[in-house]
Amino acid sequence: MSIAPATLQRIAAAAGPGGALTDPADIAPYLAEERGLFRGATALVARPADTEAVAAVVRACAEAGVAVVPQGGNTGLVGGAVPPENGAAVLLNLGRMRRIRALDPVEMTATVEAGCVLAEVQRAAADAGCLFPLSLGAEGSCQIGGNLATNAGGVNVLRYGNARDLVLGLEVVLPDGRVWNGLKRLRKDNTGYDLKQLFIGAEGTLGVITAAVLRLFPAPAETATALAAVEDLDAVLPLLARLRAASGDTVTAFELIPRLGLEMGARHVSGVADPFAAPHAQYCLIELASARPDGGLRDVLEDALSAAIAEGAVSDAVIAASLEQRAGLWRIREALPEAQKHEGGSIKHDVSVPVAAVPDFIRAATAAVTAAMPGIRPVPFGHVGDGNIHFNLSQPPAMDRAAFLAEWERMNRIVHDIVAAMDGSISAEHGIGRLKRAELAHYGDPVALDLMRRLKAALDPQGIMNPGKIV
Amino acid sequence: MSIAPATLQRIAAAAGPGGALTDPADIAPYLAEERGLFRGATALVARPADTEAVAAVVRACAEAGVAVVPQGGNTGLVGGAVPPENGAAVLLNLGRMRRIRALDPVEMTATVEAGCVLAEVQRAAADAGCLFPLSLGAEGSCQIGGNLATNAGGVNVLRYGNARDLVLGLEVVLPDGRVWNGLKRLRKDNTGYDLKQLFIGAEGTLGVITAAVLRLFPAPAETATALAAVEDLDAVLPLLARLRAASGDTVTAFELIPRLGLEMGARHVSGVADPFAAPHAQYCLIELASARPDGGLRDVLEDALSAAIAEGAVSDAVIAASLEQRAGLWRIREALPEAQKHEGGSIKHDVSVPVAAVPDFIRAATAAVTAAMPGIRPVPFGHVGDGNIHFNLSQPPAMDRAAFLAEWERMNRIVHDIVAAMDGSISAEHGIGRLKRAELAHYGDPVALDLMRRLKAALDPQGIMNPGKIV
Repeated sequence: MSIAPATLQRIAAAAGPGGALTDPADIAPYLAEERGLFRGATALVARPADTEAVAAVVRACAEAGVAVVPQGGNTGLVGGAVPPENGAAVLLNLGRMRRIRALDPVEMTATVEAGCVLAEVQRAAADAGCLFPLSLGAEGSCQIGGNLATNAGGVNVLRYGNARDLVLGLEVVLPDGRVWNGLKRLRKDNTGYDLKQLFIGAEGTLGVITAAVLRLFPAPAETATALAAVEDLDAVLPLLARLRAASGDTVTAFELIPRLGLEMGARHVSGVADPFAAPHAQYCLIELASARPDGGLRDVLEDALSAAIAEGAVSDAVIAASLEQRAGLWRIREALPEAQKHEGGSIKHDVSVPVAAVPDFIRAATAAVTAAMPGIRPVPFGHVGDGNIHFNLSQPPAMDRAAFLAEWERMNRIVHDIVAAMDGSISAEHGIGRLKRAELAHYGDPVALDLMRRLKAALDPQGIMNPGKIV
Repeated sequence: MSIAPATLQRIAAAAGPGGALTDPADIAPYLAEERGLFRGATALVARPADTEAVAAVVRACAEAGVAVVPQGGNTGLVGGAVPPENGAAVLLNLGRMRRIRALDPVEMTATVEAGCVLAEVQRAAADAGCLFPLSLGAEGSCQIGGNLATNAGGVNVLRYGNARDLVLGLEVVLPDGRVWNGLKRLRKDNTGYDLKQLFIGAEGTLGVITAAVLRLFPAPAETATALAAVEDLDAVLPLLARLRAASGDTVTAFELIPRLGLEMGARHVSGVADPFAAPHAQYCLIELASARPDGGLRDVLEDALSAAIAEGAVSDAVIAASLEQRAGLWRIREALPEAQKHEGGSIKHDVSVPVAAVPDFIRAATAAVTAAMPGIRPVPFGHVGDGNIHFNLSQPPAMDRAAFLAEWERMNRIVHDIVAAMDGSISAEHGIGRLKRAELAHYGDPVALDLMRRLKAALDPQGIMNPGKIV
């Protein structure tokens, strides 16, 4: 099923000057997909330069009944920005809309276009003495529009929330090509339903986010970073609670790293070193940050960790004494995905459970996958303070890689069954996209799925916005 | 249009034992409305004791096509919980559902039923060493279900957000009587559209909130409170920015009080006294709070205010040295609504503008209403840190009260026109209900209103949930 040439031409014209790629060589880079799981096809990549042109493209598509797949930096992990294989959809890339329309450091808001790279937004905020706290691995290439469409998480959720918590207003091109101008800079607005939260996290299935008003925060004046070693998973959450209270709730990151993860990193990734003399079962990477310049955060961290060590709750700890040492501690955490690549195949799970249930979840899921496949090596790591564990499984060392990866669905079922029994989420921060659509259909509450389908039908009755994603 | 007796009986039976009031004398208290603006009527107040009974009541109503008006503590200010005058709706009061189902101080979540009084939720959190930060004047009688249905604001929004920011999960009885169990205790969950945010702030027009999972925070270990006097509105926001930065973003309240408001309070309300020797144009009530026990917040506040005084940005300041002094400063703020009652009629506006625009808004609106009615006395006060000003107008002293109140709509139009021109909100925290429905139709973006109507039709095709409210 391909798009009629005259229709294609009309849509391409709507994208404005320089806004249409039709040469397969030009199109190919937009079809590359992070994990190589999907290979989409399209006859047209539309790259409009402003909101009006986005609206014109969507209007032309709506009139012709042609599907639209919105795309930002294309760094997603669930195939949400991949067009269908049959070439029946137009790929709508927002990368040319990268203006920062306004930034007010007293009001602490920034109005940015969807195509702004996350790191550019962070930098613009920092240049004005503010902080935009969204931070994740792909920040050098992901775009804010995609971050909002997928409700991105990352390492600062504990203190600042998910992407949806950082938005005051949105501008959205609707599935019929109308523009909803919800670019409010208001902290409080109770005039009807909160439309913006419906589009955030909808992965482009209800409309195309073209711009947003973001919340900024005072820039941190002081940061303190530590790695704490514990022997028991049950010691992790009380340590977090102790640090939140002692530091005035300034814990911005609290990441779990298991022994095996640190070992893999030290083995394969340059710059990763075990800072302790003895091995420990689990490590917590802790960061405190405060805008208060004289806060003595490092002392607070040191005192709290010393007290925890004296009580036997923590085995050992190192506190970064320099920016270089801080980078070294973060390197241990950030190296984990790369380190696992060197250990053969990985089967991945981006799951969350209620925070208090994290230790039980890790123990139960570890026991279950090990029972199902002796020799499998779980490396559960990540945002333990948010209950979000990347429950990643490295293959048994001697096993064939392809044979291991063929077990992906069986392992998913085992892990997701445990997650579901704990009232958790099968997609904590990566979204549903195409990759987890069947899993959502399997695990999703039927009432919730029915509500989602009604919302989809109400806002996109033709079903042209990013079809085949989510519901 | 009344409800057929057999239908009424079925609905009453669905409410369960002790769950139906039909005697007009028993019903009357539920029809009282805060400001006396509306007088509703109903033949039945259903007071079910659990979620299943709520669902049974709504199902019975849906089957008979009878409208349902949900009601919490009935403290709302826009008539959102008032049934229509024609008696065609059942009033569904949630007051018997007041269990705290769970509370976990390590995880910092509380699962509460809709009928819990806000102060009870605050107390339960405090008893567990935590903070539930939602705080507003009616907290002794308003219910959490109503707080969520109206996305309540209050004095701590600056630091902790609106009610919608404090929710992890919801349980909702849908307009067809099904129960959506979204009572997740998850900090991260990207499995499709964020349904809970659709019901929060929808004022019961899309379903009945029966329970919620709330976010808790570490309890403050230290609080510092001050009243700062400034002569110029333009000095207010830079003072806030300075305090946020100096205190590590621990400003929990920042309230504006104009000179006239303080004078009215001192004149009419016991316990209100001007703490300064000389009069000043504006006052900022400032509160910092931190869970960090040794934080020296009082010193931080004193240093920042001293520096501001030295620079001439602040005229004078008092810092509370005791709990009694703190209560005295808060009394000045809290007395404002009562003080205005003693000065004759008040015409009220609950509006917001972008934070940076607050001084311009107050100046423009003051000039406009004064030009329209010489002698009128604006008392703009409130949550300036959120851009939310209660722009309340006291009558000219010599004017007839009724004649003044007859100007309500004219004054609304003048003030709301200025708000709209500044991209503000005509209802910052009180909602739309019945009172502002025509205003929303007048000022609302047509695209936004169309989206809201589509959502309403998708979730409540029969139109039985709280009809005549919002859209």
